[in-house]
Amino acid sequence: MTTPPGSGASRRTPAGAAVLREDVTDAIRAAVFEELAAVGFARMSIEGIARRAGVGKTAVYRRWKSKLSLVLDLVGAVAVQGLPAPRTGSLHGDVRALLEVAAHALRHPVASQVIPDLLVEAHRNPEIADAVKAALLDAQQGVVAQIVREAVARGELPEGADPDRALDLVVGPLYWRLVVVRGELPAGYLDDLTRSAVAALTA
Amino acid sequence: MTTPPGSGASRRTPAGAAVLREDVTDAIRAAVFEELAAVGFARMSIEGIARRAGVGKTAVYRRWKSKLSLVLDLVGAVAVQGLPAPRTGSLHGDVRALLEVAAHALRHPVASQVIPDLLVEAHRNPEIADAVKAALLDAQQGVVAQIVREAVARGELPEGADPDRALDLVVGPLYWRLVVVRGELPAGYLDDLTRSAVAALTA
Repeated sequence: MTTPPGSGASRRTPAGAAVLREDVTDAIRAAVFEELAAVGFARMSIEGIARRAGVGKTAVYRRWKSKLSLVLDLVGAVAVQGLPAPRTGSLHGDVRALLEVAAHALRHPVASQVIPDLLVEAHRNPEIADAVKAALLDAQQGVVAQIVREAVARGELPEGADPDRALDLVVGPLYWRLVVVRGELPAGYLDDLTRSAVAALTA
Repeated sequence: MTTPPGSGASRRTPAGAAVLREDVTDAIRAAVFEELAAVGFARMSIEGIARRAGVGKTAVYRRWKSKLSLVLDLVGAVAVQGLPAPRTGSLHGDVRALLEVAAHALRHPVASQVIPDLLVEAHRNPEIADAVKAALLDAQQGVVAQIVREAVARGELPEGADPDRALDLVVGPLYWRLVVVRGELPAGYLDDLTRSAVAALTA
């Protein structure tokens, strides 16, 4: 990493080494989220990220070639860890578990501020559209498709139940409340929503 | 109104007059929607709007003091006309009518592209937050509150049914599908969703 003249020599990696300091990478990742939340993707710059992370621009460019690839990388990392597939043995249990995970994810600053921003950008940039689709929608669609498949196998849902429609009914209300309206989750809300979503799915 | 020196005399209104040409206003409004869709609120400029509308910047500033007030004005105009309160005499009928109107509104470029953009900006700008809330959320909340009130009076919903939760269940799935996933509305989808939403509400 290039260090500005006069900054401590202790920061420099051995000449020619491809070693990237993990703590610098972490600082940049954190700075990206903060910049995204503060100014949004459109206004965000590598310079602003570097300043916030307390590193030089080169430290950023050594790791990611553009702000787009940086953001896509982070979105992918967050999305994969966010959505394990529940296997509780009942449709009600699976929906409740999915809502718990989704509520946690949607309250995370990444989801509530950065994801809507990227969804907006996705309409103008096919690369972002593909990455957001792959990282967020495909993952959720996969989880819900499995829940529906198993509910059909148990006879809880009719043969041919549509997983996309199921995703609308389960995640839609929660997304609306947490991300669009930015409302609270009152006590018992997820239990109520589970009951409602199961009723909606089996209607 | 200030006109920069040298701007076309043919465009100038009589000294002291407050007459604004309606066709110019319409052209600017159309240009704002196109600019918002193309580059987003963050990147949009009065200059870009004026260029797209084929007018001078002064023509824009004569009507609105900033891009913020311009956008807020348009959002308000779109929102009010978008959501009449249905009165069909049944919960099922009212929900179906609301979904019809909401589906129409959410497929409009303003809703599908501009509203998510403004919701993102709203997190950084309290003025946008207030305007979006007043124009979009309050209107929808008002409509759903009336639907719930009448359903309670008819005995279709229990006393104390929560209108905000009802809004989540009715509009959430549709918003998710049309604005977040950007999916299609297959034939019969709104009928299915009406049945599901009513089942969810009465669960």
